[in-house]
Amino acid sequence: MSVDLESLYTDLHAHPELSFQETRTAGVIARHLAELGLPVEEGVGRTGVVTRIDNGEGPVVWLRADMDGLPVEEQTGLAYASTARGTDPAGNAVPVMHACGHDMHVTALIGALERLVATREQWSGTIVAVFQPAEEYGAGSQAMIADGVLTRYPTPDIVLGQHVTPLPAGVIGVRPGTQMAASDGLTVVLHGRGGHGSRPHSTIDPVVMAAATVMRLQTVVSREVDPRDVAVVTVGSIHAGLKNNIIPAEAKLELSLRYPDDAARSRVMTKVERIIRAEAAASGAEQEPTISTDHTLPPTINDPDATARLTTAFRRSFGEASVVDPGMFTGSEDVSWFARESGAPLVFWFWGGVDPQAFADAMAAGTMERDIPTNHSPFFAPVMQPTIDRGVENLVVAAREFLG
Amino acid sequence: MSVDLESLYTDLHAHPELSFQETRTAGVIARHLAELGLPVEEGVGRTGVVTRIDNGEGPVVWLRADMDGLPVEEQTGLAYASTARGTDPAGNAVPVMHACGHDMHVTALIGALERLVATREQWSGTIVAVFQPAEEYGAGSQAMIADGVLTRYPTPDIVLGQHVTPLPAGVIGVRPGTQMAASDGLTVVLHGRGGHGSRPHSTIDPVVMAAATVMRLQTVVSREVDPRDVAVVTVGSIHAGLKNNIIPAEAKLELSLRYPDDAARSRVMTKVERIIRAEAAASGAEQEPTISTDHTLPPTINDPDATARLTTAFRRSFGEASVVDPGMFTGSEDVSWFARESGAPLVFWFWGGVDPQAFADAMAAGTMERDIPTNHSPFFAPVMQPTIDRGVENLVVAAREFLG
Amino acid sequence: MSVDLESLYTDLHAHPELSFQETRTAGVIARHLAELGLPVEEGVGRTGVVTRIDNGEGPVVWLRADMDGLPVEEQTGLAYASTARGTDPAGNAVPVMHACGHDMHVTALIGALERLVATREQWSGTIVAVFQPAEEYGAGSQAMIADGVLTRYPTPDIVLGQHVTPLPAGVIGVRPGTQMAASDGLTVVLHGRGGHGSRPHSTIDPVVMAAATVMRLQTVVSREVDPRDVAVVTVGSIHAGLKNNIIPAEAKLELSLRYPDDAARSRVMTKVERIIRAEAAASGAEQEPTISTDHTLPPTINDPDATARLTTAFRRSFGEASVVDPGMFTGSEDVSWFARESGAPLVFWFWGGVDPQAFADAMAAGTMERDIPTNHSPFFAPVMQPTIDRGVENLVVAAREFLG
Amino acid sequence: MSVDLESLYTDLHAHPELSFQETRTAGVIARHLAELGLPVEEGVGRTGVVTRIDNGEGPVVWLRADMDGLPVEEQTGLAYASTARGTDPAGNAVPVMHACGHDMHVTALIGALERLVATREQWSGTIVAVFQPAEEYGAGSQAMIADGVLTRYPTPDIVLGQHVTPLPAGVIGVRPGTQMAASDGLTVVLHGRGGHGSRPHSTIDPVVMAAATVMRLQTVVSREVDPRDVAVVTVGSIHAGLKNNIIPAEAKLELSLRYPDDAARSRVMTKVERIIRAEAAASGAEQEPTISTDHTLPPTINDPDATARLTTAFRRSFGEASVVDPGMFTGSEDVSWFARESGAPLVFWFWGGVDPQAFADAMAAGTMERDIPTNHSPFFAPVMQPTIDRGVENLVVAAREFLG
Repeated sequence: MSVDLESLYTDLHAHPELSFQETRTAGVIARHLAELGLPVEEGVGRTGVVTRIDNGEGPVVWLRADMDGLPVEEQTGLAYASTARGTDPAGNAVPVMHACGHDMHVTALIGALERLVATREQWSGTIVAVFQPAEEYGAGSQAMIADGVLTRYPTPDIVLGQHVTPLPAGVIGVRPGTQMAASDGLTVVLHGRGGHGSRPHSTIDPVVMAAATVMRLQTVVSREVDPRDVAVVTVGSIHAGLKNNIIPAEAKLELSLRYPDDAARSRVMTKVERIIRAEAAASGAEQEPTISTDHTLPPTINDPDATARLTTAFRRSFGEASVVDPGMFTGSEDVSWFARESGAPLVFWFWGGVDPQAFADAMAAGTMERDIPTNHSPFFAPVMQPTIDRGVENLVVAAREFLG
Repeated sequence: MSVDLESLYTDLHAHPELSFQETRTAGVIARHLAELGLPVEEGVGRTGVVTRIDNGEGPVVWLRADMDGLPVEEQTGLAYASTARGTDPAGNAVPVMHACGHDMHVTALIGALERLVATREQWSGTIVAVFQPAEEYGAGSQAMIADGVLTRYPTPDIVLGQHVTPLPAGVIGVRPGTQMAASDGLTVVLHGRGGHGSRPHSTIDPVVMAAATVMRLQTVVSREVDPRDVAVVTVGSIHAGLKNNIIPAEAKLELSLRYPDDAARSRVMTKVERIIRAEAAASGAEQEPTISTDHTLPPTINDPDATARLTTAFRRSFGEASVVDPGMFTGSEDVSWFARESGAPLVFWFWGGVDPQAFADAMAAGTMERDIPTNHSPFFAPVMQPTIDRGVENLVVAAREFLG
Repeated sequence: MSVDLESLYTDLHAHPELSFQETRTAGVIARHLAELGLPVEEGVGRTGVVTRIDNGEGPVVWLRADMDGLPVEEQTGLAYASTARGTDPAGNAVPVMHACGHDMHVTALIGALERLVATREQWSGTIVAVFQPAEEYGAGSQAMIADGVLTRYPTPDIVLGQHVTPLPAGVIGVRPGTQMAASDGLTVVLHGRGGHGSRPHSTIDPVVMAAATVMRLQTVVSREVDPRDVAVVTVGSIHAGLKNNIIPAEAKLELSLRYPDDAARSRVMTKVERIIRAEAAASGAEQEPTISTDHTLPPTINDPDATARLTTAFRRSFGEASVVDPGMFTGSEDVSWFARESGAPLVFWFWGGVDPQAFADAMAAGTMERDIPTNHSPFFAPVMQPTIDRGVENLVVAAREFLG
Repeated sequence: MSVDLESLYTDLHAHPELSFQETRTAGVIARHLAELGLPVEEGVGRTGVVTRIDNGEGPVVWLRADMDGLPVEEQTGLAYASTARGTDPAGNAVPVMHACGHDMHVTALIGALERLVATREQWSGTIVAVFQPAEEYGAGSQAMIADGVLTRYPTPDIVLGQHVTPLPAGVIGVRPGTQMAASDGLTVVLHGRGGHGSRPHSTIDPVVMAAATVMRLQTVVSREVDPRDVAVVTVGSIHAGLKNNIIPAEAKLELSLRYPDDAARSRVMTKVERIIRAEAAASGAEQEPTISTDHTLPPTINDPDATARLTTAFRRSFGEASVVDPGMFTGSEDVSWFARESGAPLVFWFWGGVDPQAFADAMAAGTMERDIPTNHSPFFAPVMQPTIDRGVENLVVAAREFLG
């Protein structure tokens, strides 16, 4: 009796959990793995799950899926839309949604494991399947490594992973070299002086300080980075104040920075910090801003040889036109730590989750941005099929390519 | 046995409650009034308390104190500092502090009532004492009026009230005509389009929209209001986003606007709305901003004749130099609704709560803004004495001036 | 044969000259004074003109009019509108217009001198009439004083002057104490690094640096000055770059600052400089901005006793309703140096130049800003009559009040 | 007797002329061509010069050099630095400098023609040499075409051109496909309402309107363009106001926009116009901004086959390492009109003018932006040798490759 992947997917989708809180998700995963007769280790890197298939001599292939949802209020209108709420690290009650498709990643990996178990007479070697928590904090893979996953399990000969994305369903996007950007997440606290909303002159207004900082940060990309280089400076959150008639004492910004490599990171970081400090000075702040790095993600770099080999395998299985070079994505991933720390090559690819007709229509109308919701949008909703089936097949083809 | 006003004050200070949640405070008030042998009505306008002293023929004098605290995290370091937390109307857990001195107002009114009861053979008439909730929402006096307080109690011949402020202790500030500004509290929701922090081009970034709006709103006061006129446009809170790598779908601003009268209100409001809408248009927003008015406060206008009379009385009691014209305050009050709705004259005055030496030192050093915390500051802390005693005496002198 | 004041006015209006270039104007004045049989000294303080009427024992009354036009392109459509061009101090060809009414001031003073000569048997004392250049640079009165005008002519017992303004014709505005603001004119050069418009990352863009500075300077008035105080921070000019595809090396700003007194000057100046320097730092500028003060004007303070005396005289001559307290003007003047340096009292008043019906209509419609052009506007155009006649009479009444 | 190319170069460098004013330059060119015995047509497209070498049967090769200087104040400190002044189209006196190396282009083309004349027995075909004016206005090539240059001279089989750039001397940069960006130059006039600097409320301040517009325009690139796409929005000039105490009636911005193709042009242009109009609305402008396009340049697209052929030829002549793919340049050119209008293929390449050691040092120190001045910088100064000689050789090798 096979796993009902669509039911699994809608169940996961309806019950997203924030990073490092994926306990229900881990339980669902563990139950399915147990049903497949596989050994299960839970609680790896706090809430991660690991299993393995030992199938004789041969290469060791690591397959990785991430598990966590995001603090986004779902607006897809789907029958299985999330109404979940969670508590973020600051203690705030927030909505939660699988707005980045990690539910699809988990579903596809469970489906692939089932298939690989069922066909184990056709291949040899070892599969290690990693269900990683807290990708969205850029912290989960390092937590699993700190917890010993690389020493307790066979060292990978290759690390494989995939991400669902707004390409047409049926299309795989993959490229050798830098596939995803490096990234840093910063928290910035701007210190002003609070007071009565009617007496601004007795305060140092952190709301204005924050607004001026946000506007000035735009110039890093618009003026200070070579127009031909990739860089992103996003202020993803801004929070200050509790009431219209109280000028608060401080403002908090959360920044997401993106660049292709460490040299660019250093250049952008220097500019960002310079602007934050100077804008505080422009406000006459009596205390320097507090700038802290929440996470640092390396670029996700695909091994050229392994990528070429896998591209060929994908084309053989799905047709010549099925694989495109999507360019470097400005998004970031922590999957590469498994490869970096073990010295193994990595191949990480994207697969499409958008109805091909809708994609073509939006492309023709020039309304991609408006009509095709991207990852992290409250409207993000991959079509269930063929996305699930292709996610399963991608992993099976990829794993088989590198197994004996 | 008289009320221990200092204990009462420190108890109230240590237990502030948010607007319309002043149930413990109401209980404390009610208990003290009962001990004075006065009739007590609780729950007027949700959490208000009213009492009366009927003392024969004569004028009807209303004395009013407000009761609520603010969502501010106290940083005074006082032994009796608040560590209270409350839940604001949006459901967020917030710190609470008596950052506007309403605890002092309550204390002084209870002390004055005790004195007036004790000396009732010296005066005749009726006193109505109103402990009003939710001044900070600009909603409490109207709630009490809607609840019938003006019809259930004798119509005032005069309405009196006072506010503690950063004048030197011993000094009263009062002026005929406009004593405090008119004010509006606005909530503005800016609608963008959410998405992944690494793909700004697929979003309409509400954080940038909000920042540009805040910067542009500065020009209302700096460029569009006659430099000789009083106007304040404060953005007291700004909130958008939950995570660095998600561009949120919307941003919320809370504004506090101040002006001397309705004509100025109309001019400023028009400019503020024009800027908010245009900045959304500059961002290419697909939905107009949502602008709503949370409260509207009229100017607090002191009756010229009654103010002149009371000024004379204060000077007689406390010395010629004890009363100053502090100019119009840019803060606002809802006390005047009791006078406006009943047709009675109003006198509302300020009394000092700052150690005179500290005040003089800061004045000499030019460090008033830094060294003398104002109302709504997390450091706001009137000196206990002579502030409490003078608050009591002010009310007694004022009430006696207008009673028989 | 009397002076045709209307012809004189239209001639002056059609031939405005920039500050310290008023040679044609000086010639016209000198010719009229000579025709009145008065002694004429030209070239005082470069282009100023001085005359005197010695008429026996009695007080010495100084009457002052300023002479210079402004670099504004006249758009009044008047038959006698200026088409003049001049060369500004930076060597640029600019349009010139009497956009501040100094042509009216000169006309009224010549008319008054004619009247005072004709009626010299009715009064005794000495009149010194000063036609001052370069008021718009805030430099002319000091230039005349440096040139010895206060030592070569009898020391004033009183200094009198007047300014045409958008009050209704027939109305005089004057107040004791501070009548006009103190002011500073600053030039700021922001140093960036030039380069190709297509390669912003190789430059330090001074256009963006200047724009951010202008936006941040708005917060001085909106956030850092007590809303009840008067302050103005105007960036009157901004210049950078010569071509769309060259990023220039620097940007120049010219600022006009206004405040009621020296304490406020010091506070505002500190804030303005702080912001300019911090915004350059935010841009990563390798050189500090160059900030220089072009002129510093003291507040124009009317002597209380003399002002009271003159107000009474005006009311006696023109009716009770003819004199109003216009409040402090945010404009500035250098007339007070004549009084400050000589120790004499000063009275400086405004007189209306707007058709009273048009004024009343605009007031009723709430369209004052749009319909009644102010000084320095390209549409500024006092009605010729009764403005000229009242300007003459004002001076005659005032001089006679203080003469024997 | 051969041309002294270094003297020619320093003479041209010391005497730059603005676009469509290159009359002295044209005379120098014409004199040298005549000395080579070539036919000379002057005044083509106002100030252009054309010559031809007819050398029997064979392909027609067009060689193009541009001639004009820029309004930049030279700061190189070179012995032959320009001190020239010119008059720009708005009538302003401006400094002039060969800040884009067109003097080098002219020198190299004259040197190449001399060499091709001297070796005419080694090749056959026809050379048309075009000295084009007004490249910096994006107008010169179209002016020459409108003047009939494509009909009066043999139709090209190939169009060749080159540009000196901050690559190391000895290096050629060229790529098939899009070599330089498309570009538009816009002039924007923002309409406010002028008035006195002390009365901002009676005006609509165009300086603030312009500053807000500049800040908001930064968000086109930072937020609205895919981080992986190339786009530049430069405000190269900003001008408003003549005096610190007059708020002017309008502000003028000049913009330079860059993108790889027409689809991107349309997207960026829409966003830029949206922001300009919305920021005027935010200021309450009573008149829409005036937006006009000064020039539109197509992308410079190198023919793939011809580029491959020429790359091979360059490598054969100068060594394998001598040619690099420099990526698309964000600068723009109007050279491609000669190819577009005639249907001929185009190859346009860059050659280095920087001392290789200085280049290597700056690269190692990470100080390229600071130490290696780019085109349009007041410090732009190619080293004279080997830049001149390599410029000559490049053209000879290229022409010979395509001639018979």
